[in-house]
Amino acid sequence: MDVRLERDSLGELELPADTYYGIHTARARDNFPISGTPVAAHRELVVALAWVKAAAARANRELGLLDPRVAEAIDKVCADIADGWGHDQFTVDVLQGGAGTSTNMNANEVIANRALELLGHRPGEYRHLDPIEHVNLGQSTNDVYPTALRLALRVRLGELRNAVSTLRESLLGKGKEFGSVVKMGRTQLQEAVPMTLGREFAAFGLTFRDDLTRLDQVCDALAEVNLGGTAIGTGLNAHPGYAAAACRHLAELAGMPVRPAFDLVEATQDAGAYVEVSGVLRRLAVKLSKLCNDLRLLASGPVSGFGEITLPARQSGSSIMPGKVNPVIPEVMNQIAFDVVGADVTVTMAAEAGQLQLNAFLPVIAHRLLSGCAHLAAGCRVLDKRCVRGIRANADRLAETVARSPGVVTALSPALGYAECARIAQEAATSGRTVTDIVSERGLLAPDHVAELLAAASTAI
Amino acid sequence: MDVRLERDSLGELELPADTYYGIHTARARDNFPISGTPVAAHRELVVALAWVKAAAARANRELGLLDPRVAEAIDKVCADIADGWGHDQFTVDVLQGGAGTSTNMNANEVIANRALELLGHRPGEYRHLDPIEHVNLGQSTNDVYPTALRLALRVRLGELRNAVSTLRESLLGKGKEFGSVVKMGRTQLQEAVPMTLGREFAAFGLTFRDDLTRLDQVCDALAEVNLGGTAIGTGLNAHPGYAAAACRHLAELAGMPVRPAFDLVEATQDAGAYVEVSGVLRRLAVKLSKLCNDLRLLASGPVSGFGEITLPARQSGSSIMPGKVNPVIPEVMNQIAFDVVGADVTVTMAAEAGQLQLNAFLPVIAHRLLSGCAHLAAGCRVLDKRCVRGIRANADRLAETVARSPGVVTALSPALGYAECARIAQEAATSGRTVTDIVSERGLLAPDHVAELLAAASTAI
Amino acid sequence: MDVRLERDSLGELELPADTYYGIHTARARDNFPISGTPVAAHRELVVALAWVKAAAARANRELGLLDPRVAEAIDKVCADIADGWGHDQFTVDVLQGGAGTSTNMNANEVIANRALELLGHRPGEYRHLDPIEHVNLGQSTNDVYPTALRLALRVRLGELRNAVSTLRESLLGKGKEFGSVVKMGRTQLQEAVPMTLGREFAAFGLTFRDDLTRLDQVCDALAEVNLGGTAIGTGLNAHPGYAAAACRHLAELAGMPVRPAFDLVEATQDAGAYVEVSGVLRRLAVKLSKLCNDLRLLASGPVSGFGEITLPARQSGSSIMPGKVNPVIPEVMNQIAFDVVGADVTVTMAAEAGQLQLNAFLPVIAHRLLSGCAHLAAGCRVLDKRCVRGIRANADRLAETVARSPGVVTALSPALGYAECARIAQEAATSGRTVTDIVSERGLLAPDHVAELLAAASTAI
Amino acid sequence: MDVRLERDSLGELELPADTYYGIHTARARDNFPISGTPVAAHRELVVALAWVKAAAARANRELGLLDPRVAEAIDKVCADIADGWGHDQFTVDVLQGGAGTSTNMNANEVIANRALELLGHRPGEYRHLDPIEHVNLGQSTNDVYPTALRLALRVRLGELRNAVSTLRESLLGKGKEFGSVVKMGRTQLQEAVPMTLGREFAAFGLTFRDDLTRLDQVCDALAEVNLGGTAIGTGLNAHPGYAAAACRHLAELAGMPVRPAFDLVEATQDAGAYVEVSGVLRRLAVKLSKLCNDLRLLASGPVSGFGEITLPARQSGSSIMPGKVNPVIPEVMNQIAFDVVGADVTVTMAAEAGQLQLNAFLPVIAHRLLSGCAHLAAGCRVLDKRCVRGIRANADRLAETVARSPGVVTALSPALGYAECARIAQEAATSGRTVTDIVSERGLLAPDHVAELLAAASTAI
Repeated sequence: MDVRLERDSLGELELPADTYYGIHTARARDNFPISGTPVAAHRELVVALAWVKAAAARANRELGLLDPRVAEAIDKVCADIADGWGHDQFTVDVLQGGAGTSTNMNANEVIANRALELLGHRPGEYRHLDPIEHVNLGQSTNDVYPTALRLALRVRLGELRNAVSTLRESLLGKGKEFGSVVKMGRTQLQEAVPMTLGREFAAFGLTFRDDLTRLDQVCDALAEVNLGGTAIGTGLNAHPGYAAAACRHLAELAGMPVRPAFDLVEATQDAGAYVEVSGVLRRLAVKLSKLCNDLRLLASGPVSGFGEITLPARQSGSSIMPGKVNPVIPEVMNQIAFDVVGADVTVTMAAEAGQLQLNAFLPVIAHRLLSGCAHLAAGCRVLDKRCVRGIRANADRLAETVARSPGVVTALSPALGYAECARIAQEAATSGRTVTDIVSERGLLAPDHVAELLAAASTAI
Repeated sequence: MDVRLERDSLGELELPADTYYGIHTARARDNFPISGTPVAAHRELVVALAWVKAAAARANRELGLLDPRVAEAIDKVCADIADGWGHDQFTVDVLQGGAGTSTNMNANEVIANRALELLGHRPGEYRHLDPIEHVNLGQSTNDVYPTALRLALRVRLGELRNAVSTLRESLLGKGKEFGSVVKMGRTQLQEAVPMTLGREFAAFGLTFRDDLTRLDQVCDALAEVNLGGTAIGTGLNAHPGYAAAACRHLAELAGMPVRPAFDLVEATQDAGAYVEVSGVLRRLAVKLSKLCNDLRLLASGPVSGFGEITLPARQSGSSIMPGKVNPVIPEVMNQIAFDVVGADVTVTMAAEAGQLQLNAFLPVIAHRLLSGCAHLAAGCRVLDKRCVRGIRANADRLAETVARSPGVVTALSPALGYAECARIAQEAATSGRTVTDIVSERGLLAPDHVAELLAAASTAI
Repeated sequence: MDVRLERDSLGELELPADTYYGIHTARARDNFPISGTPVAAHRELVVALAWVKAAAARANRELGLLDPRVAEAIDKVCADIADGWGHDQFTVDVLQGGAGTSTNMNANEVIANRALELLGHRPGEYRHLDPIEHVNLGQSTNDVYPTALRLALRVRLGELRNAVSTLRESLLGKGKEFGSVVKMGRTQLQEAVPMTLGREFAAFGLTFRDDLTRLDQVCDALAEVNLGGTAIGTGLNAHPGYAAAACRHLAELAGMPVRPAFDLVEATQDAGAYVEVSGVLRRLAVKLSKLCNDLRLLASGPVSGFGEITLPARQSGSSIMPGKVNPVIPEVMNQIAFDVVGADVTVTMAAEAGQLQLNAFLPVIAHRLLSGCAHLAAGCRVLDKRCVRGIRANADRLAETVARSPGVVTALSPALGYAECARIAQEAATSGRTVTDIVSERGLLAPDHVAELLAAASTAI
Repeated sequence: MDVRLERDSLGELELPADTYYGIHTARARDNFPISGTPVAAHRELVVALAWVKAAAARANRELGLLDPRVAEAIDKVCADIADGWGHDQFTVDVLQGGAGTSTNMNANEVIANRALELLGHRPGEYRHLDPIEHVNLGQSTNDVYPTALRLALRVRLGELRNAVSTLRESLLGKGKEFGSVVKMGRTQLQEAVPMTLGREFAAFGLTFRDDLTRLDQVCDALAEVNLGGTAIGTGLNAHPGYAAAACRHLAELAGMPVRPAFDLVEATQDAGAYVEVSGVLRRLAVKLSKLCNDLRLLASGPVSGFGEITLPARQSGSSIMPGKVNPVIPEVMNQIAFDVVGADVTVTMAAEAGQLQLNAFLPVIAHRLLSGCAHLAAGCRVLDKRCVRGIRANADRLAETVARSPGVVTALSPALGYAECARIAQEAATSGRTVTDIVSERGLLAPDHVAELLAAASTAI
């Protein structure tokens, strides 16, 4: 194998001659053989790192700190990475020590070596263009890594927002479709009072209104970055004009708003924004899981369950029980939700463990948040397309239960009183007869009056 | 108000003359006005502290380190506390800083001042009998507090074991009672194959076998104490013979086995045993919650749910819906379970946060574990007496669903093949006709053969 | 004992003649002997229930549905409860099944029986004024309980906001006080670059800015209530004008904004707002815990720790080690934080477990959120008054570490390059000599230039 | 592309002619495009599935239910899979609905199609050898999937056990190496009493004794499988002799003990064993995280931290701060631990969500437990080799702190009393003078006596 030699303060290391990553990445690969999942698995994070590096190069060039040829070469490589080039070179494990330093170094090295090639040099000839002195100029992992993470999260959160929004519309559509299907509402798994299946599905959809708002809010909060803070937010070694220029270029490159944090020291150490993002994901996960629990329950059967709706069949449900069909799409969403709630605890612990001027545990936070966004978005898309859109109402079953349920007695309560109605309900439940029959038989109310009150209850819906 | 003056290294403080607690307790009361729940809320912890203090006094007396009169007075007070005296004097908040030092000081002071009274002195006349020099002799909070906590946990865990065991027996009893009631078993809320309600309830009960074993195992692990380790497990300032003697007396006083830890330094810093206890509680909570979910589901109705069993009515279910009855007993157990799972995260974080030679966060661990045991035990007792024992099977409903469910087709699969059976099941589900009818009509199997295979399926149960 | 007899649909029960609570409360007491903590422990919840009941009575009176004498009596009792009367009658356990029905019934009964007294009748003479027909008129637990909980949370969150705000100001004050004290900033527990202790404390304070905003936001979200939705949000049995009128009166009584939810069915089943409140508490807890970890670390010592600051001594730290002083105030806050994070998991699970039109597990959500707010507020107050305000800087120690730390080399990096500086830092760390000495000795930079660069680094702060 | 056509009860589907997986797998791929991680990522699970399928084939052949040629072909393919063949065909996402059915179907199809090839047929010619009728004969996902998962976990847990054991030995080795290095022990980050660095590291190692025991215990518990239970544990459609024979062959193939569960219905629905495994991983994670926190703390510096030990440098610590070295190896273990604790919550929620006769959420449980084992094992190996083995003691720094710390005063307490010693300690802390000097100066004890007591304290260690 053709090799090249690189040096750092720990000594020398041989690298395959054609790798774009360098000695810092190689050491990190040795140090962190943990999950086998490389940073490249989070495409958005790699792209966002490229945006940050390009923004820094442009700012430094403007400020006269970087040779235009060097700056242009860096810029070109970053554009290529944003387009998908070289992601296989981002090979450090997602689970890594060092607060993201290895990921930043990985980016510095890949960009430098590819830029060297563009400039006609060979990888490793850092005297022409150095990963640290040029690519990382005016930067620190302390500001580069969280800035890139925030941009990557915005991208992912935007995709999630779209997926939730589409799911919400499908649910509201079903709400309209089922608008005239009367059914018994339930509390505590016992029939309560009548409502419509449309109202039930509308509520399923409406509940995501707040989540969309929260997703927008956290995206806005993530626009605040600590770029320019360099080490621990002091801005040491960055030109006074650098922060503003770099943020301006970054906003342009990423095509999204970017604001400098109001206090760079605070911003560098604080993991509160990640805890908040995680909280928003977790809340959404809880709602999606509740929705899926409800769908599975309403579709339970085929003969001995609730049987109020039928979910579209998507695959055979069993290797032994012929013809069995299971609610596999809601089930996968439940599992995604459990995973996101667990990840929320991981993020919480990692945030709590931050010490003094930096949180060293950003890598696991980044990994879990980016994965969480992606899994939730994928789950919403599948739930929408492969389940919700195909749901059908079992109208006969629903009508029958409304006719037979003692729960309709509540509508007679203003006329007959709570205590009397409780006796009627009990008799209905025990005898299996309908409330209407019992009331008629006892002559408590004229049949017309009963019908009127029950109809009003349905109108109330 | 009549007052007395006490001193510590921070200065002087006036105390009501008749309080048994002293200056250290008073400062802790001022420092920790957090939850309003005093340590006395955990009766077993107060009693266990008294056992430890008595055991220390007896050991020190034997070793010639404590004047017999002083030792006897301490012993007498501790016996009274174990019988219920003076718990109102244990007033430090359960949420307190300081690794339990305030609770230990509270015990030292209450015992000293009450012992002073028994010896004819007044509270605060510590030259005769001192909270630290005599009551705490050869001890440190580092060993006293965890030792007492372990004994208190054993008591609580023993109560919990009894409650779980009784609940298990009731479930097994129901398993026998319902032994001949055939029903459709379910996977993923869809009918699977036939089974009996008895087998279902037996499984509900049998699942607690392992939990009883685990409760026994953690009780055994908790018998290992670090008494004699004093500060950080070095045993500094304790007589060489003290640890063995104190453990011997403690076992006798507490009426339970007590073993010295195999390494006192390790034992003093390690919170692993608490994480393990919490894990056992959490596992039990998860199973109880699953059981209660199942009971609520099987009892759902009254007309549009599963309706397979009826839970005993315990209270009116609604302030507006007359005659509504809800599964309130399982619901409270679900909530206890959620609380225990949350507490498990609290205990985990507190354990993780321990530093070097001590875990400073034992008080919140103690509070959550003792509460968790108590709540789970109370929940099991209520679930047993007020719910499980009164459950009735709705045999008609169950027989009807078995007759109508396409799920019975699995029994014909060996004879007809999976693919053919899947077609039959689908037709049954769509048409509402029974599997038996479809098979007969198509002439796929002789009616006798069908009956035989279905009967065999029931026997298989 | 003098008794009275009450009836419900389950039968009769004897009650002590002088209790204000009635048969529904009594059954709940029997059903839920779980934690021993009565609902009255959450004073704000009891007061908020009284507000809701008074608002309902006023609305119903206006609509001509309630006899003015009855309405006035109810109103009077509610005012008294808001002033503190009768809380000892709210005796149902905080851990209860039934979605809050027992708490609502408890309120209905206490108000009815006390109102009966005011009207010259005896408790239990419900034909004159009935807990359900009158006190609960136009209401359901489904709307009353969440509405009261939201108001109670607002009160508690307001108190928490004040406590956090005061703590923040003290930290900012310390930031000013320590503005000129130079120190080494740290990442990953290793010295990074110089900063000031003032900047460090300012960041500690500034970080709570977002939390104050979030507290305001959730308070605003909680203003949206489902009052008027009655059972499952249908509004069944409530007068068409009731919801608006009741909300208007409620806002007036509570002295805070109240808005009807945009969709009552959605609002009745959704627990998302509680998950969000819990998320805000959890985020705050994480930050407070991180702050306390940092304070304990910076104050570690006395001779072998960081020793950068001294926390005020609040109590003796040990029962065996004389003169030991521990950071007990930060320690209690750590534990409060762990408890809040655990409660967050409890709330999450309880929210996820909601089914169809209602979440039956609101009682544990209510208990944990109200407790969490209270504990965090108490912790913030104690942390502020008994710790932060008394913190002193150990200026000599700080100056010495800046002088000796190799970390200052970063300021020379633009002049000497990263690789050269790395060699200098390594030599400094190994030899114990200062960076300035090494650079001078090697003649790499003129002493004036070094001094200038280092001074600039300090100015950069 | 060359295609073949397959059918199931939902209709027809075209598949690339050369894929070994079939229609059920293809549908699952469409249904679950969630994480992008295929089941094949858990190599052990794929291998264990092959063991189970081979064991079933052997048992069925023995019982005369399977043609020997077919059984042999299945057996051969399974052996190849166990050796690594065909894992790329196990492409269903790790996050999948359906309780593992898709994974089981994936195995059935891959084995069938490869076996068809071996028998001279083409993939899809299922009339010769069918995925369901032959490969899945006498089986259900309900028993196959948990059985395979348990075996896979045992393999992973065994690897973890080895890694923990090796780490433990290295820590004990350091305990011996540092046996004579005296230092101040600490509680609550404040100096307590003297101990040795050896004792500290020995305790770090000894603490894993219990974890090794727990790992052994859960491995033993996992030996209990429900193979033979088929659907919901009834054993329907399996030959009476099948369960025993299959378990016997499975034990032989896997080379580990396999026991039939004591009640197959209970075993099929219970997820308690997974909660327990997760609890053991979580406890281990907490201990490893605490160890790493301690290592990072003891190594904090270089000049202003604890500085008691030096960790081996493994990579440059910063892209901007030259010469900075960070504790990256402990940091990655901290993150692994946070991830495992989060996964524990995921597993807990998934276990709690199981309903009636089956837990539908096993796939996420499987994914998180298998990943957790692997990450913890990798972390232990890295922590051992790249950190612990290279730790050096900073003896000078340690000796100096013992000489100067007021904490040594505890050794004089039996001679001078707690109160007097508290005054001495306070003076020492304030003045910076040593305890020995103060005691000598005041003439409280003869210098010889002081020396003797302090020496005894060291011996006490």
